[in-house]
Amino acid sequence: MVEFAQAHLSIVKHFDDIISEREVARLRSEKPKNRMARQIGLPPGSLLHMDLERDAKSKITLFHYDEANLVRRECMLSQELAPPLPEGITWIHVTGTLNLPLIERLGEVFSLHPLVLEDIVSSEQRPKSEDFGEYYFIVTKIYMLEGRRIVTGQASFILGGHYVISFLEEDSGLFAPVIERLTHPKGKMRKLGADYLVYALIDTIVDHYFCVLEQFGDDIERLEEAVVSQASQDNLQEIHDLKTQMLVFRKAVWPLREMISTLERGQSGLFREPTQLYIRDVYDHITQVLDTLETYRDVALGLLDMYISGASNRMNQIIKVLTIISTIFMPLTFIVGLYGMNFRHMPELEWNWGYPAVLLVMGTIAGGMLWYFKRKGWI
Amino acid sequence: MVEFAQAHLSIVKHFDDIISEREVARLRSEKPKNRMARQIGLPPGSLLHMDLERDAKSKITLFHYDEANLVRRECMLSQELAPPLPEGITWIHVTGTLNLPLIERLGEVFSLHPLVLEDIVSSEQRPKSEDFGEYYFIVTKIYMLEGRRIVTGQASFILGGHYVISFLEEDSGLFAPVIERLTHPKGKMRKLGADYLVYALIDTIVDHYFCVLEQFGDDIERLEEAVVSQASQDNLQEIHDLKTQMLVFRKAVWPLREMISTLERGQSGLFREPTQLYIRDVYDHITQVLDTLETYRDVALGLLDMYISGASNRMNQIIKVLTIISTIFMPLTFIVGLYGMNFRHMPELEWNWGYPAVLLVMGTIAGGMLWYFKRKGWI
Amino acid sequence: MVEFAQAHLSIVKHFDDIISEREVARLRSEKPKNRMARQIGLPPGSLLHMDLERDAKSKITLFHYDEANLVRRECMLSQELAPPLPEGITWIHVTGTLNLPLIERLGEVFSLHPLVLEDIVSSEQRPKSEDFGEYYFIVTKIYMLEGRRIVTGQASFILGGHYVISFLEEDSGLFAPVIERLTHPKGKMRKLGADYLVYALIDTIVDHYFCVLEQFGDDIERLEEAVVSQASQDNLQEIHDLKTQMLVFRKAVWPLREMISTLERGQSGLFREPTQLYIRDVYDHITQVLDTLETYRDVALGLLDMYISGASNRMNQIIKVLTIISTIFMPLTFIVGLYGMNFRHMPELEWNWGYPAVLLVMGTIAGGMLWYFKRKGWI
Amino acid sequence: MVEFAQAHLSIVKHFDDIISEREVARLRSEKPKNRMARQIGLPPGSLLHMDLERDAKSKITLFHYDEANLVRRECMLSQELAPPLPEGITWIHVTGTLNLPLIERLGEVFSLHPLVLEDIVSSEQRPKSEDFGEYYFIVTKIYMLEGRRIVTGQASFILGGHYVISFLEEDSGLFAPVIERLTHPKGKMRKLGADYLVYALIDTIVDHYFCVLEQFGDDIERLEEAVVSQASQDNLQEIHDLKTQMLVFRKAVWPLREMISTLERGQSGLFREPTQLYIRDVYDHITQVLDTLETYRDVALGLLDMYISGASNRMNQIIKVLTIISTIFMPLTFIVGLYGMNFRHMPELEWNWGYPAVLLVMGTIAGGMLWYFKRKGWI
Amino acid sequence: MVEFAQAHLSIVKHFDDIISEREVARLRSEKPKNRMARQIGLPPGSLLHMDLERDAKSKITLFHYDEANLVRRECMLSQELAPPLPEGITWIHVTGTLNLPLIERLGEVFSLHPLVLEDIVSSEQRPKSEDFGEYYFIVTKIYMLEGRRIVTGQASFILGGHYVISFLEEDSGLFAPVIERLTHPKGKMRKLGADYLVYALIDTIVDHYFCVLEQFGDDIERLEEAVVSQASQDNLQEIHDLKTQMLVFRKAVWPLREMISTLERGQSGLFREPTQLYIRDVYDHITQVLDTLETYRDVALGLLDMYISGASNRMNQIIKVLTIISTIFMPLTFIVGLYGMNFRHMPELEWNWGYPAVLLVMGTIAGGMLWYFKRKGWI
Ligand SMILES: [Mg+2]
Ligand SMILES: [Mg+2]
Ligand SMILES: [Mg+2]
Ligand SMILES: [Mg+2]
Ligand SMILES: [Mg+2]
Ligand SMILES: [Mg+2]
Ligand SMILES: [Mg+2]
Ligand SMILES: [Mg+2]
Ligand SMILES: [Mg+2]
Ligand SMILES: [Mg+2]
Ligand SMILES: [Mg+2]
Ligand SMILES: [Mg+2]
Ligand SMILES: [Mg+2]
Ligand SMILES: [Mg+2]
Ligand SMILES: [Mg+2]
Ligand SMILES: [Mg+2]
Ligand SMILES: [Mg+2]
Ligand SMILES: [Mg+2]
Ligand SMILES: [Mg+2]
Ligand SMILES: [Mg+2]
Ligand SMILES: [Mg+2]
Ligand SMILES: [Mg+2]
Ligand SMILES: [Mg+2]
Ligand SMILES: [Mg+2]
Ligand SMILES: [Mg+2]
Ligand SMILES: [Mg+2]
Ligand SMILES: [Mg+2]
Ligand SMILES: [Mg+2]
Ligand SMILES: [Mg+2]
Ligand SMILES: [Mg+2]
Ligand SMILES: [Mg+2]
Repeated sequence: MVEFAQAHLSIVKHFDDIISEREVARLRSEKPKNRMARQIGLPPGSLLHMDLERDAKSKITLFHYDEANLVRRECMLSQELAPPLPEGITWIHVTGTLNLPLIERLGEVFSLHPLVLEDIVSSEQRPKSEDFGEYYFIVTKIYMLEGRRIVTGQASFILGGHYVISFLEEDSGLFAPVIERLTHPKGKMRKLGADYLVYALIDTIVDHYFCVLEQFGDDIERLEEAVVSQASQDNLQEIHDLKTQMLVFRKAVWPLREMISTLERGQSGLFREPTQLYIRDVYDHITQVLDTLETYRDVALGLLDMYISGASNRMNQIIKVLTIISTIFMPLTFIVGLYGMNFRHMPELEWNWGYPAVLLVMGTIAGGMLWYFKRKGWI
Repeated sequence: MVEFAQAHLSIVKHFDDIISEREVARLRSEKPKNRMARQIGLPPGSLLHMDLERDAKSKITLFHYDEANLVRRECMLSQELAPPLPEGITWIHVTGTLNLPLIERLGEVFSLHPLVLEDIVSSEQRPKSEDFGEYYFIVTKIYMLEGRRIVTGQASFILGGHYVISFLEEDSGLFAPVIERLTHPKGKMRKLGADYLVYALIDTIVDHYFCVLEQFGDDIERLEEAVVSQASQDNLQEIHDLKTQMLVFRKAVWPLREMISTLERGQSGLFREPTQLYIRDVYDHITQVLDTLETYRDVALGLLDMYISGASNRMNQIIKVLTIISTIFMPLTFIVGLYGMNFRHMPELEWNWGYPAVLLVMGTIAGGMLWYFKRKGWI
Repeated sequence: MVEFAQAHLSIVKHFDDIISEREVARLRSEKPKNRMARQIGLPPGSLLHMDLERDAKSKITLFHYDEANLVRRECMLSQELAPPLPEGITWIHVTGTLNLPLIERLGEVFSLHPLVLEDIVSSEQRPKSEDFGEYYFIVTKIYMLEGRRIVTGQASFILGGHYVISFLEEDSGLFAPVIERLTHPKGKMRKLGADYLVYALIDTIVDHYFCVLEQFGDDIERLEEAVVSQASQDNLQEIHDLKTQMLVFRKAVWPLREMISTLERGQSGLFREPTQLYIRDVYDHITQVLDTLETYRDVALGLLDMYISGASNRMNQIIKVLTIISTIFMPLTFIVGLYGMNFRHMPELEWNWGYPAVLLVMGTIAGGMLWYFKRKGWI
Repeated sequence: MVEFAQAHLSIVKHFDDIISEREVARLRSEKPKNRMARQIGLPPGSLLHMDLERDAKSKITLFHYDEANLVRRECMLSQELAPPLPEGITWIHVTGTLNLPLIERLGEVFSLHPLVLEDIVSSEQRPKSEDFGEYYFIVTKIYMLEGRRIVTGQASFILGGHYVISFLEEDSGLFAPVIERLTHPKGKMRKLGADYLVYALIDTIVDHYFCVLEQFGDDIERLEEAVVSQASQDNLQEIHDLKTQMLVFRKAVWPLREMISTLERGQSGLFREPTQLYIRDVYDHITQVLDTLETYRDVALGLLDMYISGASNRMNQIIKVLTIISTIFMPLTFIVGLYGMNFRHMPELEWNWGYPAVLLVMGTIAGGMLWYFKRKGWI
Repeated sequence: MVEFAQAHLSIVKHFDDIISEREVARLRSEKPKNRMARQIGLPPGSLLHMDLERDAKSKITLFHYDEANLVRRECMLSQELAPPLPEGITWIHVTGTLNLPLIERLGEVFSLHPLVLEDIVSSEQRPKSEDFGEYYFIVTKIYMLEGRRIVTGQASFILGGHYVISFLEEDSGLFAPVIERLTHPKGKMRKLGADYLVYALIDTIVDHYFCVLEQFGDDIERLEEAVVSQASQDNLQEIHDLKTQMLVFRKAVWPLREMISTLERGQSGLFREPTQLYIRDVYDHITQVLDTLETYRDVALGLLDMYISGASNRMNQIIKVLTIISTIFMPLTFIVGLYGMNFRHMPELEWNWGYPAVLLVMGTIAGGMLWYFKRKGWI
């Protein structure tokens, strides 16, 4: 009888696991709290409050090119950057965590505004473009896939008349295809100016957005099926996480469209006529990303409604089982209880066919109920 | 007794089917994953990354016409396209999966921008129009019915001064009515220019939108009735799918309106005065499609609320049944249990009228409860 | 005992009626399916595809008036319409289902564009206005009450310099008050031009909108009370239908406001200075209709939330009853079961006061539970 | 036993009261139905259809003032209004239900457009302003508190070069503070023109909006607490009513902002430079009202979600009780039933320690379940 | 047996605590009701109705500075403010609850408009900027953290040609970093004009917004975990409070962006060229705050949906337990009841193997049900 109690207990326990067990420990980077408090009231253009000490990892690649020649040089120290720039187009590609002397040196050599330097090293800068006359400053967000993981970052660009400076937080090989194309002597990139190079870099970033978008689409498709077939608490968490990811992605892409639209309208002399057609093409792509994202968000919202409706449906089914069981057995249990009473004078008990008669009545009730529930479509 | 257990089991099992069985296997085209990754960082205007190898299926139909004459010619090879174009208006209608040599040849002959060629062969291009001075480039989306199935595609148009080039992904006979009208020597189409031809083609595409819209309307009507009368999990899936379909359709039509509005404002000299009145008519139709679609979306959202409310209503009814059954039989079962006790001294058991009295009391309780529930409106 | 089973069954059955019975058969006009498919690719201005054969029912009323005189004439045939128009203002009022020869004749006499003729006979045209220089074309939607039923239709107007042509799908007496006012020789209408007549006709249409709006308001008020007091599945259906009706109504009124706003800005020379003040008044009324409608929609959305919350509340109450009944009777049933056991050695059974003691204990339990539930506010 | 049945019944009955009792009879003014139908097709500017017969209650107060003098005069008859107006500024303040001869007289004396007269007497006019060249016409909505009740009304203003006519539906003392300020000979109001007087009157109306808004805020705070602590059906009704009130209030304030913004842009010569600064201040206040209202609406929407979530939580708790009771007593009841069977050969029944052993087993089961539920956090 | 009843009662009681106990008494400042009613109809620019009596706490700090010198002076009385201002730039920094003589004195000395004075002392003024020609007036909202508590306030600025007056409701040390930077003789602040000082002050305010935003982010992250793992009624309250806080914060930041955008467009001559670049930087930051806030709001909305879905899931689990227990024990209890009947002729009771056979059958039923539920995934 003790085993019975044990067994009884273990049935109930089972559900408990389903309810309370969940892998709460999502991998979160242990970011330092009150990060923001440190920089309150600092003068604009302050670079000191940023974590710029790790200069070991930064890398500078210089490209000097024109239609005929291409020179590529790596330099590890900011001192190597010395004006004047050679003829043709110069591309200074800075990757890795930024270091303070490098940024200061670049600011000096190219007379960059302190606010520009600050925006370059800030990893939370919103996509934007600013025209400083002498040069054009652009900030964009990177969203790319590493396997199934979404990796984010920031890319900034300085476009001068004959030079481009690009900044990447990490050396991710993002611009490898552009460098590859640059090495082809007959390529369009070698013929067109520095503005076309900036276009090509931004275009590469936007190409990666489509991969991220494709993964969102796959996730939605997978969740659509999961929600209908099982609908666990994990699905709920996944829907929520997907929605949050899409919101954050949207926050990065939305201002980029605005920015590209500004470039396209061509108010800056630095983006010249032939490049503007290409900028319009990027604009097109970003609009497509945003349109699709909007559709995905609406579908994701619908997923949640399906989840809730499905849960409600399942509950209906469970309660139906309970109700049918109760509706059948409660009357039967009453009847057997009735003839379990100990009254001295209960004539039925004395009848020879009393027992079979009661069995018959109970069978009729149970059968009738079953037939009724069947007709009603409950079973 | 074993049969009893079996029967008992099979009641419960029934629900199981309802819950877990669902035809998950929707027909999905087995699209290749990471499609997007292949084209990251490619130069703009690259046609190579597209699946353009299947040239066997493409078909070119040439029309040369003016008010007096109409010449129609089919050509299977791109080499047959040779300038200069004859007098009058030339319509080059390309259908079937596009092939690379053809697209390259067209680009050469008509000096089309590589980005235009890329947009033509890309099947994901957003509806848009672009003015290249010499020619006007238009992309639209096709939504048409084959039976009850919605078929989608892309149609692009190049409008030059005296020529039109149209591109269809598949040879679906979409433009047959326009070709038919072109053969009538007295028709408006023969009198008006190439811009009117483009209008007529777009108008035909928009006409098909109304059919798709009509089907959405029928689906909503059907689901409105289904949700009220039965509200199965399948309905839920259907509502979700309908909503998704409408979102995707909207994504295709919305930018088209914007585009037609640009044409209507007549900034390009290629769309002339008499055609603009017709363009306004198409604009009208697209606006009507969008208005109706918006209304349908709101109704579809309401369907979901009805579904959830209906499920909640049904659960209330089921629980009412359970509660009534329990409320009637629990006291009765207690009473028969009471007189089933084996105490030596229970005077009621000895009474001659004990049994009938207990039956009477129980009948009163049951009857009272029933009367009460009736008055309360529960039964 | 069989009656018992029957009674038991009939209790359960009762709910069934509530659940599954619903008057699904809403009166729907048996519209022909695939209506849209017939007109794909037809040339613009085609009247042939419309159902224009029933010329028997159409009626033309002609008014020629100036400040001094008013001539009214009915004509049944389009041939009676012959230019030139007499001095003063001519109003040609066409009602009843339109017939093809009439429309063609009007197009001929007044040189109307084929697209205008098409819009007049299309019953799905969105409200709009178009300036053709020689004449102004206006389409509006009619929403009026017949008893409690909302009747819809379309009214179109052609405003030339000295004439107005109005088209109504059905001869509903909609413009009777305007005709009445026209007969007063001293009325404003006789003094002001054809543009004022068009204003007066549109104003009459908008007046009817307020009646429809008033009915929506009454419906909402009625449903607000119904939802709180009973909240049946029918209410749900009614809320859904009301919301759909309001969406459709909004679709008709929204573009009308836009259109009237265009008229008010007075870009067409056909609407002259003194009439513009009146147009602004109509604009005011339409804005009021839309504002109120928007408020009604938000209230109707709230109704649904109330319905769901109310259903949830009611379920809580029902489950409370079930829980209280179970919480009281389950322990009692256990106790009576306990003393119904047949162990040979159960000392309590032998006690003289065993039975009353058990009754007392059970009374205490039941009383305690009741007291507790009372304190807790459950009963 | 009959009392038992009675008691049993009365438990159940209790809930009934909670469910079905609600004070449905909200105080509604018994408005005449089909009010709108009466005015269909009437000519613009018709005053006849309004309920203007009750002239006994209307009151006219005249103020003639300049920097030095102030004359105040009450007149009960419209005939007393006679041009020409004296030097300085004249303010004609009309309160009480409007009467037809008065309105007609004012229209005559000041050459007001019939549409203006109609708008003044219409109590449903949307806030707006219209420039008639000679005079400026303004309509606003009044929302003020009488105790905790929100009282609404309409105020209209005619601003001419040297005169102001103001109309109030009821003599509510709304403008008493302005009259008070007017009596101070050194006040700003005596120095600045008629436009400043209109500003002061509108400012007073907007001041009252803040009181209404404050009450909305109090209601929301009260409901926030109520929803968490009890969440009755009445709260639901209150939330719904509050949301409706805020929607209606918003409908009145929203167009007022638009209107004030028009005044501020100073296109009418009647609002002069020094007054415009004050108008900007009113604009500020209205924007603040709308911002706060928008925030309140979002909070009120959240209240509903809290209500539903709270109800769902409570149901979970109730069902937990039911489940625990059933989980503990069902096995126990089975065990006592087991040893209540009448088989001839049941060895346990013969054991001396059978009864205590069963009691022990049952205690173990019950205790184990309780311990388990405790650990699980259910109790 | 009494203990039994007691124990039974205490199980049920436990839930009660969970349901009804909640710390309703949130700390609310005991604000005086009908605050708004006091100021109805007061003339514009009235300072008397404000609570300005507590002059003891206010403090005035004067800074006179140019590139070479900085003089700092504290003055406790408004009389010490005497024109003319010295050469260089003057910053008058007023903190603490404002007092009437001070405000009046400032208004006199700097010829400020009464409406400006009123806005300065009003603590509910919406962020805005106004150009008075001679000076520029700016109002902003302060949101900063004290520990985890959000503290709000208002800061106003008067920018004249050579002077800045700043007003803070409380002496919170908010501008300490700016004062610190001002003391550096080589700092940018000493070189640039009064407009740069205003920029620096606003920038400091916006820096604090990021801290508040960071806390919102932390709250959301914490609630995301809480909702999934436990989802108590307290979480619900926290989500609601967080949403309300974010709405109120948004109401303060949204108009600030609009305002800064006006400054940036540089229509006032008081904000000169070099400062505008910095203003653009602040604009950037505010936009980032608003974007992130919008994302947070959407995530917070999703939290609620997760909460409701989670509750629904948990209910499903609980009801499953109940259903399984009932489905197993109801048939068993029926069977033992069956053989507890007292019919004289029940052959099974006489069988030697009757009892074991029944035990076997019941074991089979229970085992079968368990196996079935396992296969079904319920346990
Ligand atoms: Mg920055
Ligand atoms: Mg979008
Ligand atoms: Mg969208
Ligand atoms: Mg969108
Ligand atoms: Mg949407
Ligand atoms: Mg939803
Ligand atoms: Mg492209
Ligand atoms: Mg048309
Ligand atoms: Mg719409
Ligand atoms: Mg839309
Ligand atoms: Mg829309
Ligand atoms: Mg909508
Ligand atoms: Mg909704
Ligand atoms: Mg909803
Ligand atoms: Mg009016
Ligand atoms: Mg609105
Ligand atoms: Mg709207
Ligand atoms: Mg609106
Ligand atoms: Mg709304
Ligand atoms: Mg707002
Ligand atoms: Mg808002
Ligand atoms: Mg708003
Ligand atoms: Mg909102
Ligand atoms: Mg909602
Ligand atoms: Mg103010
Ligand atoms: Mg935003
Ligand atoms: Mg946004
Ligand atoms: Mg926003
Ligand atoms: Mg959003
Ligand atoms: Mg939502
Ligand atoms: Mg929601």
